[in-house]
Amino acid sequence: MTLSMHSASVPVFVRMLGNVTSWLDKAEAHAAQKKFDTAVYLSSRLAPDMLSFTQQVQIACDAAKFCVARLAGVESPKFADDETTLAALRDRVARTVAYVQSVAPASIDGTDDKEITVPRRDGAITLPGDVYLRQFVLPNFYFHVTTVYALLRHNGVPLGKGDYLGSLQADPAR
Amino acid sequence: MTLSMHSASVPVFVRMLGNVTSWLDKAEAHAAQKKFDTAVYLSSRLAPDMLSFTQQVQIACDAAKFCVARLAGVESPKFADDETTLAALRDRVARTVAYVQSVAPASIDGTDDKEITVPRRDGAITLPGDVYLRQFVLPNFYFHVTTVYALLRHNGVPLGKGDYLGSLQADPAR
Repeated sequence: MTLSMHSASVPVFVRMLGNVTSWLDKAEAHAAQKKFDTAVYLSSRLAPDMLSFTQQVQIACDAAKFCVARLAGVESPKFADDETTLAALRDRVARTVAYVQSVAPASIDGTDDKEITVPRRDGAITLPGDVYLRQFVLPNFYFHVTTVYALLRHNGVPLGKGDYLGSLQADPAR
Repeated sequence: MTLSMHSASVPVFVRMLGNVTSWLDKAEAHAAQKKFDTAVYLSSRLAPDMLSFTQQVQIACDAAKFCVARLAGVESPKFADDETTLAALRDRVARTVAYVQSVAPASIDGTDDKEITVPRRDGAITLPGDVYLRQFVLPNFYFHVTTVYALLRHNGVPLGKGDYLGSLQADPAR
């Protein structure tokens, strides 16, 4: 199947956010086994001036949500950043997956040259859709997903590369 | 420009490995300012059973190198995993960038359906080119690149999201 704006985005988000959900499940089981409150994960950071675990999950979700909304040219759903439990974060991930799957693939395919404007702290930038996806969305999405994984590993959750990548045989896009 | 197997891989590797080089430069300056040996970075890990900083850089490079070689159907250069200094890692990154840029884009474009076999610990798997790129190469590449960044941040190197993403205006693929 030819690589496309949809196949390079939505199935990637769905796969990786599905993997994140399984990491959260393992994090919960690990906390239960070691008898600590799962809230410990939520405030953890890799450096004092990096974002917390909760924010890493929220931004991973938003990276997927905004990509789909901007490429398709539709309003994205608003998610309050009010999660205070692992269960609420799992729900945020599930709502994100449901949203990105709800947008018609045809409204994302063919947006390679569509001008996408991204608000940034130092002023908005406008990029063609394919550059937006390759240079902004995917590096940003993977940054936050990997940092979620790294924080769980740093906190002792038994995860491995197989958990990070997920099954390599199933692919919803094919 | 339409997203393609080449535009979704080589320019991404070149951009992000260029960013890694600038992080290594800042790591060196940070160590000089704080008067510690840069070798401290090389053995650092986010968890005792995760790979070291040196290995994270090596594998990020190999993810890019093997992707290009497998898609293009050519033999990849062999890089000895013998780096013991930050300067040697910087050179590994430079050799990787030079290699992925040396392969003709036309030999990578159109490999969407090409069968790619990936040796893995639990047996080789075969995936179509686009699935190989989306589900294996890019998550793996970003995992190691992000972990390099996270290790430097964890060790106090003053880096921010701008360093991670790099400039969003320049794009060698357009």
